[in-house]
Amino acid sequence: MNIDERLTSLRQQMDHFGIDAYILPSGDPHQSEYPASHWKSREWISGFTGSAGSAVITLSHAGLWTDSRYFLQAEEELSSSSFELHKMLNQFQPGYISWLSENLAAGSKVAIDGALYSLAQRKQFEKILSEKNIELVVTQDFIGSVWEDRPAIPVDKIFEHDVSFAGKSRETKLTEIRHEMRELGASKHLVTTLDDIAWMYNLRGYDVEYNPVFVAYTVISEDETLLFINEAKVPEDIRMRLEKDKVYLRPYESIIPYLNTLGQNDRVLINEGTTNIELFNALKHAEVISGPLISRHLKAVKNETELDHFRQVMVKDGVALTHAFRWLENTVKERAVSEFEFSNKLAECRSQQEHYYGESFGAIIGYKGNGAIIHYRPDKEKCAMIHDEGILLSDSGGQYLDGTTDITRTISFSEPTAEEKNAYTRVLKGHISLSMAVFPEGTTGGQLDMLARKDLWQDGLNFLHGTGHGVGFFMNVHEPPQGFAPGGSMRARTKHVPGMVTTNEPGYYEENKFGIRIENLLVAKKSSFDGFLDFETITLFPIDTSLIDQPMLTRGELE
Amino acid sequence: MNIDERLTSLRQQMDHFGIDAYILPSGDPHQSEYPASHWKSREWISGFTGSAGSAVITLSHAGLWTDSRYFLQAEEELSSSSFELHKMLNQFQPGYISWLSENLAAGSKVAIDGALYSLAQRKQFEKILSEKNIELVVTQDFIGSVWEDRPAIPVDKIFEHDVSFAGKSRETKLTEIRHEMRELGASKHLVTTLDDIAWMYNLRGYDVEYNPVFVAYTVISEDETLLFINEAKVPEDIRMRLEKDKVYLRPYESIIPYLNTLGQNDRVLINEGTTNIELFNALKHAEVISGPLISRHLKAVKNETELDHFRQVMVKDGVALTHAFRWLENTVKERAVSEFEFSNKLAECRSQQEHYYGESFGAIIGYKGNGAIIHYRPDKEKCAMIHDEGILLSDSGGQYLDGTTDITRTISFSEPTAEEKNAYTRVLKGHISLSMAVFPEGTTGGQLDMLARKDLWQDGLNFLHGTGHGVGFFMNVHEPPQGFAPGGSMRARTKHVPGMVTTNEPGYYEENKFGIRIENLLVAKKSSFDGFLDFETITLFPIDTSLIDQPMLTRGELE
Repeated sequence: MNIDERLTSLRQQMDHFGIDAYILPSGDPHQSEYPASHWKSREWISGFTGSAGSAVITLSHAGLWTDSRYFLQAEEELSSSSFELHKMLNQFQPGYISWLSENLAAGSKVAIDGALYSLAQRKQFEKILSEKNIELVVTQDFIGSVWEDRPAIPVDKIFEHDVSFAGKSRETKLTEIRHEMRELGASKHLVTTLDDIAWMYNLRGYDVEYNPVFVAYTVISEDETLLFINEAKVPEDIRMRLEKDKVYLRPYESIIPYLNTLGQNDRVLINEGTTNIELFNALKHAEVISGPLISRHLKAVKNETELDHFRQVMVKDGVALTHAFRWLENTVKERAVSEFEFSNKLAECRSQQEHYYGESFGAIIGYKGNGAIIHYRPDKEKCAMIHDEGILLSDSGGQYLDGTTDITRTISFSEPTAEEKNAYTRVLKGHISLSMAVFPEGTTGGQLDMLARKDLWQDGLNFLHGTGHGVGFFMNVHEPPQGFAPGGSMRARTKHVPGMVTTNEPGYYEENKFGIRIENLLVAKKSSFDGFLDFETITLFPIDTSLIDQPMLTRGELE
Repeated sequence: MNIDERLTSLRQQMDHFGIDAYILPSGDPHQSEYPASHWKSREWISGFTGSAGSAVITLSHAGLWTDSRYFLQAEEELSSSSFELHKMLNQFQPGYISWLSENLAAGSKVAIDGALYSLAQRKQFEKILSEKNIELVVTQDFIGSVWEDRPAIPVDKIFEHDVSFAGKSRETKLTEIRHEMRELGASKHLVTTLDDIAWMYNLRGYDVEYNPVFVAYTVISEDETLLFINEAKVPEDIRMRLEKDKVYLRPYESIIPYLNTLGQNDRVLINEGTTNIELFNALKHAEVISGPLISRHLKAVKNETELDHFRQVMVKDGVALTHAFRWLENTVKERAVSEFEFSNKLAECRSQQEHYYGESFGAIIGYKGNGAIIHYRPDKEKCAMIHDEGILLSDSGGQYLDGTTDITRTISFSEPTAEEKNAYTRVLKGHISLSMAVFPEGTTGGQLDMLARKDLWQDGLNFLHGTGHGVGFFMNVHEPPQGFAPGGSMRARTKHVPGMVTTNEPGYYEENKFGIRIENLLVAKKSSFDGFLDFETITLFPIDTSLIDQPMLTRGELE
């Protein structure tokens, strides 16, 4: 089936159920940023392969909403079907819901798959749609019955993440979670996010590319916990050790029937931002307490063992980068190297380091104008060839048992232009300002973000992405809640506390010409001033000093 | 009646109506920051005279919640009664509601006067209280019947603010408001805030100290507007000119009966943050549209005439300050001058300038340790004497027909200490960073605020107030919505746009030793970079250079 045939088939179902619009997100029932292939239904229906975006299908229109990182990619991938690209100016606002509220008649019905949307999203959508008397209908999956060669949910084995890396046993982690549950008056806590589940049990898996997580749900009670997982994924020795810690396995699919059995004596803590509607609806008899996802904050504050590993893994990662960049600099003197080849070289150099597990994301290797495409990934067949001149942006990272890395360097193979130097120097100044910040307890990522931008702004330059994100420990490279970002997102609102590890990655992008980004990892810690924090930069690999403009000019002076 | 007798009398009423707690705010039915004396019921019941704070009376406890600006003052003023001070760490969060939810039994009733709280406040309070099954009861005024010598609502005459100052006729202003009403689908717009009403009609009054506003409500329709005001306040010639512009007078008290008459064909735009509960309840038959207070944004963006006047009035204000400071510097060489005497001298020097109307707020003249009390006002009898040594903080402003001013200077009469110089220099660096900011369209006050703090933070110093507030034009010196402030307040969330006038006033306070603040007015304007803004500083009066530390040290180096 091509895309338009898939659309026809979906619209037949919509028509059958009296639905005027169907929305598909990029996520899964666990609100993952990167889902397993089984749940890539938005990709299947639209052909758009980017990590963020929503498809909206009405009886007369098929639209794909995505943000500026993916405009070019989406235009290309949608060109052969009747899907149209809708450009989102703000990746945190559901522009497609506003579009539906403006384009559907009162009385229309918009359907979503209750497994793929959180309770918070449902509330947000309903608020917007109800103003125009449009009904939001929570349905089952409309795609499953028409998607013939759908990948299965992965059955790869899980494995233990040794406490010598994790620094804290699952027993301790569960004790800490239970302590906060009691504070919140909860007797049970439903956790649905894959990185939280992997973290609290010191388990890892292979279910999602680049992210060492596995598909499961869990419910923590006062004196035992249930892990809802395909039992075929759990080696026998792990099952026995889990049982010793009073962690009992249940079939993945039995989560809904189990939640149905909970009664009014069960005070179940859920997080509305991560719990999907189907699970929430299954809690029909229990007392539901809406609150935080306890493990999210515990996980974000790295313990001393994790921090020591993080510092060491950045040394290893720097060694790997040194090998890779030296190889590149020598090789381009003799022949052109494709962006794709260099991304493989990076992975190869990392793989020679101890405890290597894989890359932490698909490397962004952008030569010249490709560096200005913010989430560019070199395609084996079509990517650019790197020659011995011009600018290269390299953003990559590794997964090691002893930590996750993320580092960006921009290098020049020839004498940079004044424009490139000016932009690079201002990015670097912002990068240094943020890394040297001293700030009072309670300061948010929204406040700190400004430090990385002000020197660019002084010359009328800016970058349209956040300045940083939390980083997991042998875990997802994008880890909530903290970060550096403007606006009202979770990253902007979260206060930095000692032990959080966050990227510092301002940039500047000149379309079709070049992209610049400098990224290192920061650890927040107590400063020497009472009540104040500061950052430790734990990246060692040097920057390209040939790109620094000294003294710094302005665009006016350059012209 | 002393305070405790007043409490007894109030508690008898609470008991009679079966109420467990009664809350009193500092505001009036118009959500004014500074109300006319008639509405100072929180002051009457508690004895606390500060501009911000809430009294909470239960049958066994009387509490006064206020923020750090008023801790010292409140402790003193509450010392002779059974009122206890509750210190608010965040002036924008209703800590007293959380306190009630923790200290009252389930099933309790908390009462508020529906005229004194906005719809948004009611929703916020109900959300917190309902979690503990505590009922919020909206009642009438409980104070009126026991407050014997209550001041009347003012009947002073209003006057016209000439369009040669205002720059825009009321006809034009009403046209602009009506345009936005149509965009929002409204046929009527209820406006309750006194500065908005004064602004849109180019009228001013004497009803509130320092703020040239008058007590009224207004309802704007498609082709006429109604002004609800005590008719005795309106001179005949003004009434005739208003009628010519289709602005018709109605008695102030008739607003409720009038709103009652509106029916389902009336689509009434209200703002939930400023419309009190009593007025909202009166709209029982109409279709209510919740939305922005249209005039707030129009008023905040000053027109070219206003901006030209603002620049000129700052020259006059600088001349007045030069006279006053020269007098002070000469006089303290011969005799001590009380803080109170200097505040009068400032007003006297301003009053010699053309178009002077009055001071824009009670001058904050804080010598040495008094400068560290953020909203200090010198008391005629008890204030400090200024001698020819040490530091003085002077924060004052004038109301002129051609503009409102607000300026702070910190001066030293002798060689400053290294600690004073270090703090002053860091405050000044922050002040300059903010004034020289270049920033993209869409940047909020919450982002820009950081620029004024970062140099203090680098040395572990900070200040616990916002960095700036909007300023009215011959209007309230505190004018929403914009400002510079951390957190999630309106000032933090509002985007700066060309024409907004905002104070830039970082500071540093060392308890019992000294206070430092440097304040100038900024006008936001388009920068030379496309899509970027910057600021014009329109204050001319110089700063005290003897306080600048060059090169700047750190606290570590000072010790």
